Amino acid sequence: MRTRIENVTLVTTDEANHLYPQGCLVIEDDTILALNDFDLEVDEVIDGKQGLLLPGMINTHCHLGMIPFRSLGDDCPDRLRRFLFPLENAAMTRELAQASARYAAAEMMLGGVTTVFDMYYFEDALAEAMSEMNMRAVLAETIVDFANCDSNEPYGGLAISEQFIAQWKNRHPLITPAIGPHATNTNSAEALKQAQAIAERYDVLLSLHAAEMDYEMEMFRKEKNQTPIEYLESIGLLSPHLVAAHCIHVHDQDLRLMAQHGCRIAHCIGSNTKAGKGVAPLKKMIEQGIPVGLGSDGASSGNTLDLFSQLPLVGKAHKTANHDRSLFPAKEILPLATLGGARVLNLENQIGSLTPGKKADLVLVETQSVNMYPIYDPFSVLVYSANASNVDSVWVNGVQTVKHKQLVRHDLRALRADLEAKMQVFKAEALRRSEDL
Amino acid sequence: MRTRIENVTLVTTDEANHLYPQGCLVIEDDTILALNDFDLEVDEVIDGKQGLLLPGMINTHCHLGMIPFRSLGDDCPDRLRRFLFPLENAAMTRELAQASARYAAAEMMLGGVTTVFDMYYFEDALAEAMSEMNMRAVLAETIVDFANCDSNEPYGGLAISEQFIAQWKNRHPLITPAIGPHATNTNSAEALKQAQAIAERYDVLLSLHAAEMDYEMEMFRKEKNQTPIEYLESIGLLSPHLVAAHCIHVHDQDLRLMAQHGCRIAHCIGSNTKAGKGVAPLKKMIEQGIPVGLGSDGASSGNTLDLFSQLPLVGKAHKTANHDRSLFPAKEILPLATLGGARVLNLENQIGSLTPGKKADLVLVETQSVNMYPIYDPFSVLVYSANASNVDSVWVNGVQTVKHKQLVRHDLRALRADLEAKMQVFKAEALRRSEDL
Repeated sequence: MRTRIENVTLVTTDEANHLYPQGCLVIEDDTILALNDFDLEVDEVIDGKQGLLLPGMINTHCHLGMIPFRSLGDDCPDRLRRFLFPLENAAMTRELAQASARYAAAEMMLGGVTTVFDMYYFEDALAEAMSEMNMRAVLAETIVDFANCDSNEPYGGLAISEQFIAQWKNRHPLITPAIGPHATNTNSAEALKQAQAIAERYDVLLSLHAAEMDYEMEMFRKEKNQTPIEYLESIGLLSPHLVAAHCIHVHDQDLRLMAQHGCRIAHCIGSNTKAGKGVAPLKKMIEQGIPVGLGSDGASSGNTLDLFSQLPLVGKAHKTANHDRSLFPAKEILPLATLGGARVLNLENQIGSLTPGKKADLVLVETQSVNMYPIYDPFSVLVYSANASNVDSVWVNGVQTVKHKQLVRHDLRALRADLEAKMQVFKAEALRRSEDL
Repeated sequence: MRTRIENVTLVTTDEANHLYPQGCLVIEDDTILALNDFDLEVDEVIDGKQGLLLPGMINTHCHLGMIPFRSLGDDCPDRLRRFLFPLENAAMTRELAQASARYAAAEMMLGGVTTVFDMYYFEDALAEAMSEMNMRAVLAETIVDFANCDSNEPYGGLAISEQFIAQWKNRHPLITPAIGPHATNTNSAEALKQAQAIAERYDVLLSLHAAEMDYEMEMFRKEKNQTPIEYLESIGLLSPHLVAAHCIHVHDQDLRLMAQHGCRIAHCIGSNTKAGKGVAPLKKMIEQGIPVGLGSDGASSGNTLDLFSQLPLVGKAHKTANHDRSLFPAKEILPLATLGGARVLNLENQIGSLTPGKKADLVLVETQSVNMYPIYDPFSVLVYSANASNVDSVWVNGVQTVKHKQLVRHDLRALRADLEAKMQVFKAEALRRSEDL
């Protein structure tokens, strides 16, 4: 099956960041066959109506099960220990996490995200959900030093992870298992080392929250006279397997260590700034050659899971932090959401740019809405003007999942009704806990 | 004519910030007649479908004629002198500014803005455009120390302003004239004093850009050993007429002076941060009791003219600048876009909250889209999750201008085609000037 999408500007975000006005792209089955070849015989032609065709965006840090938390306690200090951990322990179930993941996949695809790196619980159920939704996902079961919704034992996630990885490794074209010790300060050194051993044994990615919290920084300084990154190095956790989320409070030496060990970073500017935590040194990360992608974080911390919400903020936060308007021009920001994310997930040979031979993960952004005119520079419009609602069509692995701003294979209202039905206990508990806010 | 909008949560942003779930609002002609009175006889009932009904948002700083600049030279240092001033002088016409203003009004209303404070050229033509579009506007002709598209003489705007104010003062329910000397450093003291004299003679607002630019700060420090605000005070420009835009680089003493003189501030966080200029001290402004509203700035500096683009950034920028997640909770951010803006424009008796007796400027935000669920806190969802595309319906002065995400009285495609036709010369010149970027 061959499909040509024409009457579009190709925003390739390939190595040279090629832009082709009035271009076309041909899909063959699950793969990008060619760019700008109008002579190839095809079975179907799609008129892109002067839209912008981009690679699917890659959300490198998310918590798929956390849709039920959206808009709860947003401005409350230490939400993590007041709402998140207790509510997860009291009211998060396999069925709720799975329904949330389906809804999260719908939200991301409707907003142009085609691949997600998740860290949550019940990852086998989430893998099923991602498969049903036809969304590409790297999935990591959370490991943490207390009993949780998915395990009666502290560090129960270690055994669950190993089982999950063994079960899903190389079994599904869209699903890649990984391992997810929660954070530098919520796992013992021993647990982190065990997680690392699993990552190495199965050759999977390992993600954790690092250098994110003030109290995390303070704890490592006081107890070990180290930064969290120095600590991770000292216990053997810095390696090409590592995708470190946040890295807000990293020093130059931390970044040198991360670069030396081939680590990657998921930069979550929306979540970080909404929490008042700070602005990670993105410029220095990139100067060190560390692969950096963008992450929405969960719906609790980041509210929306699309990356259009992150793009303008990447520019604004870092231009402001560096007092330099010319820093991070739009053409350097957009690729963080695509090719940058692919590098972070070790998938740059498969996704992240409009390149023949890569998988057909595509986003067509319409330019008819009021905010999308005029266009001198497609990068500027995508970064500073567009929002998730401008996504017209999405393909994942060659399959169209969004058409004219609607899900093709699922009914959003049904997904929402299913989630609503499964979150009654959770909601009651959430409301009870927010009463005295 | 009486209309009841029901099945909505009323987000009043009144003095007490009342929130009424399952409320209703009754419009009589151009006025809000009652809240939550289900017994009043009405001619028409509108089902709000569990949406959020808010007062129309108020954009306190915009340049209506600048849609033709959108996405041009966004990341280029000193765009003002490289693109803006030269292009306006070479290719901005009355017809183009007016077509741009119509398009800008469409964009704002589709995004929930019902009132704008504009500073541009050809304000009589822009007043006609706002009247045609049925949008509420305070309009100020720009005065600047060089010949420009609207005047062959430096300071020609002074005479144009006086004529414009005399012509439009108290003549139209939606249009309020004002005066707009461009900035502290692009007008002589004499011209600023003349503008102030006109503002006082006709009792109109005076807006200018202040404490925005590094070189502005440096110039006043070197030449006068003053801040721009101290300079404005020394020449009699601080008064209740003043709406100062930006005020990024204001000291505590500047804010005390502004508070003493009853000045107001248009806070443009999106434009300021995109330019890497800095984060204005919003917390201190509010502590000083200075009325503060939000502004998009023009489409050149701010890209999108709706205020949903500004709301999350207000929270994120100021929480981060103050390293405090609890600062500016969502319920304090939303009113900046409504009642705060009304105070800035001296219109708090007419607009800015859902209050019986005020004008029926209303925005219905739908909650069916994927990003709008769940809702524990309507303020959180409006500030952190919503975008302009969630605006379902808009009323200005009791007249519905947007229904189900479409303009009621105008055709967006026709407005765009008209603008496109009128911007051919401008576009050619813009492309020529951006060739070597």
